[in-house]
Amino acid sequence: MAISPLAPAQFPQMPPLAGVRLATAAAGIRYPGRTDVLLALFDQDTTVAGVFTRSKCPSAPVDWCRAHLKAGVASALVVNSGNANAFTGKSGRTATKLTAEIAARAAGCKPTQVFLASTGVIGEPLDATKFEAVMDRLVASAAPRAWQEAATAMMTTDTFPKGAAAIARIGGVPVTICGIAKGAGMIAPDMGTMLSFVFTDAPISPRVLQRLLAQGVADSFNAVTIDGDTSTSDTLLAFATGAAAARGAPRIANVSDQRLPAFRKAFDAVLANLAEQVARDGEGARKLVEIIVEGAVSKPSARKIALSIANSPLVKTAIAGEDANWGRVVMAVGKAGEPADRDRLSVWFGGIRVAHRGERDPAYDEAAVSAAMKKPEITVKVALGLGRGRDRVLTCDLTKEYVAINGDYRS
Amino acid sequence: MAISPLAPAQFPQMPPLAGVRLATAAAGIRYPGRTDVLLALFDQDTTVAGVFTRSKCPSAPVDWCRAHLKAGVASALVVNSGNANAFTGKSGRTATKLTAEIAARAAGCKPTQVFLASTGVIGEPLDATKFEAVMDRLVASAAPRAWQEAATAMMTTDTFPKGAAAIARIGGVPVTICGIAKGAGMIAPDMGTMLSFVFTDAPISPRVLQRLLAQGVADSFNAVTIDGDTSTSDTLLAFATGAAAARGAPRIANVSDQRLPAFRKAFDAVLANLAEQVARDGEGARKLVEIIVEGAVSKPSARKIALSIANSPLVKTAIAGEDANWGRVVMAVGKAGEPADRDRLSVWFGGIRVAHRGERDPAYDEAAVSAAMKKPEITVKVALGLGRGRDRVLTCDLTKEYVAINGDYRS
Repeated sequence: MAISPLAPAQFPQMPPLAGVRLATAAAGIRYPGRTDVLLALFDQDTTVAGVFTRSKCPSAPVDWCRAHLKAGVASALVVNSGNANAFTGKSGRTATKLTAEIAARAAGCKPTQVFLASTGVIGEPLDATKFEAVMDRLVASAAPRAWQEAATAMMTTDTFPKGAAAIARIGGVPVTICGIAKGAGMIAPDMGTMLSFVFTDAPISPRVLQRLLAQGVADSFNAVTIDGDTSTSDTLLAFATGAAAARGAPRIANVSDQRLPAFRKAFDAVLANLAEQVARDGEGARKLVEIIVEGAVSKPSARKIALSIANSPLVKTAIAGEDANWGRVVMAVGKAGEPADRDRLSVWFGGIRVAHRGERDPAYDEAAVSAAMKKPEITVKVALGLGRGRDRVLTCDLTKEYVAINGDYRS
Repeated sequence: MAISPLAPAQFPQMPPLAGVRLATAAAGIRYPGRTDVLLALFDQDTTVAGVFTRSKCPSAPVDWCRAHLKAGVASALVVNSGNANAFTGKSGRTATKLTAEIAARAAGCKPTQVFLASTGVIGEPLDATKFEAVMDRLVASAAPRAWQEAATAMMTTDTFPKGAAAIARIGGVPVTICGIAKGAGMIAPDMGTMLSFVFTDAPISPRVLQRLLAQGVADSFNAVTIDGDTSTSDTLLAFATGAAAARGAPRIANVSDQRLPAFRKAFDAVLANLAEQVARDGEGARKLVEIIVEGAVSKPSARKIALSIANSPLVKTAIAGEDANWGRVVMAVGKAGEPADRDRLSVWFGGIRVAHRGERDPAYDEAAVSAAMKKPEITVKVALGLGRGRDRVLTCDLTKEYVAINGDYRS
C-alpha cells in the first residue's frame, strides 16, 4: 500500500522517556513474519488513565482495561495488531486474562497491572498462547527510544507510523511527553479514539491524568472523523512514570495545581498532532479537510454541524473531485438538525467566500476556488450568524481507494 | 450512464387516472434539449397532502408547498429537474412565485393551488421565465397515461424512471393509485423523501390524505437510505382527484372510516414499491440490501440500529466486496447508541447465521455465505435478544461508482 500523500515527511525525532521501555515482535497473530506485538514496560508507580470507545459492543481488551483502570497503576502494556479480540465472547475474556498473565509472569508484576489493546479483524478468536513464545524475548529486549518500531507494530491499514513528542516544564523541571497512534478507518467521535498511547515521565496522579486525558481528547481525537464508523476497540491510554521526580519535578495530584497548565498545553498538542496524523492517513485520503463552523448557538451545536459536514459522503466525494460544491455543505448543515437559518448562512472554501447570507456570493470566482480545491489541504468554513458557538473538526475526502481498501479487507 | 443492474425489467403498466392530465417539456433549465419540466393538471376539488424534508435549510419550493398546503386543494403541479432552487435566497422565493403565476395563468387557476418541486444543483438561481415559453404548450398537450414520460422528466442521476400503480376498492368501487418517484442519492430518512408524487381518483379529504401519507412514509421512503445524506428538496405529495365519486365511490373524510383500510393497504404498497425502486437505483449500487433488526427494546430502537448498519460505509463497502464481514455489522450495532448486549447478539447474511450469542457461529460455513454474498439482493439480519422491537430498512452497497458519480457531478 502506497504511503498517504498527506503523510508527514518523516517520523519525528522522539527522545527516550525515563521509566518506559519498548519492544516489538512478530508473534504470527494473523500473518506470519509481520511485526504484530508491542510491549511497553513501566517503572514502579507508573500511573495510568484511559478513555475508550463508546460502542455498546466493546472488545474484550476494552472491557479488561476498564476493569483494571481504577487502581491507577500500570506495569506493562501489550498491544497486538491482526486480531481485535472483539465479539469473541467468553473465549475473548479468557484470551485477555491469559495475555495479561503471560506478560505479568515475564515482567514480574500483577496481571491486573497489565493493560491490553488489540486491533484487527473482529469476531475471530485470538490465540493468546502465541504471546507465550515471544514474551520473554520482548521483556529481555525492551529498551527506550524504539518509538517508531512501536508505532509500526500497531499498524493495520495505516500507511505510516504515527508519533509525536513534546517537552514541557513542571515546576521549572523539563519533562517529556511521547505519544504513538494507529488508525486509518472506522474512526469517528463518540468514542475514546482509535489506538493511541501517550507516555510522560512527569509525576502525575491517576486522577489528574484521567482528567487531562478526558478533556484533551475532546478537541483532538474526538474532533477527527474518517468515515463516521466507530470501532469496538478504540483505546487511548496515558501513562505517567513519574521518573522526572528524581530530577526535582513536583508530583501533581490536584487538577487546579498552578503548575499543570503549561504541561497540559504540551500534552494537548501531542494529542492534537497524533489525531491530525490519523486524519492524514484516512483510508484512501488525498485531501486533509478542516471543517470550521462558527456563529452557531453553542460549541456543541457547532460540533454537531461540523461532524454532519465532515461525515457527509456527498461533501467528501465532492472534495475528492476537487469540486467546491457548497450546495452539499448547505445540505449537510440542514440535515444536522441544529439551529440554522438559511438566509444567514455563509460558506467559504479555502478562505474564499462562495456563499453569503443564503445566496451565492456575488463576487464568487469559480476559477479561484477551483485552484484552492486542487491543494492537498482544504478548509471549509461555515458561518451561521446565530451566536458565538465555534468548533473545528478534521476529516479527509472519500475516494475510490477508500472503497477498494474496505471492499476487500478480509481476503 | 448504464441502467442499474437492480432496475425492474420494465416500467410498469400504469392506467390513466381520471382527473389527472400530464405533460412534459424541455425548457432548457440546465441542459438544452433535455426533458426537464413536468406539469400535472388536476380536475376541480382535487385534494392534496404532503410531507417534506426535515432539513433546516429547505429549498424555496418546499417552503412554497408548505405554505399553501393548508387549504388542501390543488389544481396543478410543476416539477423541474436541473435546478433545485435551493439556497437561492430572495431570488428563490421570487422564482417560486413566478413559476406558480405562469402555471396558474395557463391553467386558469389560483397560483396558491399550484404545487412546486425542483431537483438538481443547489445554489444556482432558477430562471423561472423559462417556464413561460413552454407552459401554454404543456397545458394544451396534457393528457392521461403519460406516466413514464412524467417519471423520466424528473430524473437527475437516476438511471431508470420509477413508477408504481395499484387498484383498490373503496365501498366496493374500484379506485386507482398511481405514483412516480425520482431519487438515487442524497437520500436518507429524517425527511419526507426525495421527489415522489402519488395520485388517486378516490375521493379523500385533505386531512385523511395527510394522515395516510404521514403514516405511509414511515415504513417506505423513510426506511430507505442510500448515503445518509438528506436533501434540501425532498418532497412527497399526494393528490386525490375524487373522480371515482362519479362511479359511486364514497367520500372518505374520517381516518377511522371502515372503508379506508383496504385503500390504505394499496396506497402503502405503492409507496413501498417506489421506495424500493429508489434503493435499487442508489448511485453506483450493485446490491440491494435489506437490513432487518429484531429483538430490540422497541421499534424505534430497531430502526436506529438498522439505520446505523445501513449507513455504515464499512458495512456498505464490505457488501460491495461480497464480503460477509459481520464484524462490521457488530461495529455498527455498537455505535448506534441503542441498548445492545454483545453476548446475546446474532447475525445472519442471506439467511445464514454467521454469529450467535456474541461469538462466531460454530456451524458457520464461509463458502455458503460467500455464495449468498454474490447475489444481487442481500438480507442482513441482526437479532439482539432483548425485546420484541423489530424494523426493516433498505439500502444498497457503496461502490467506486458512487464516488465517481458524486466526485464529478457539477462539471
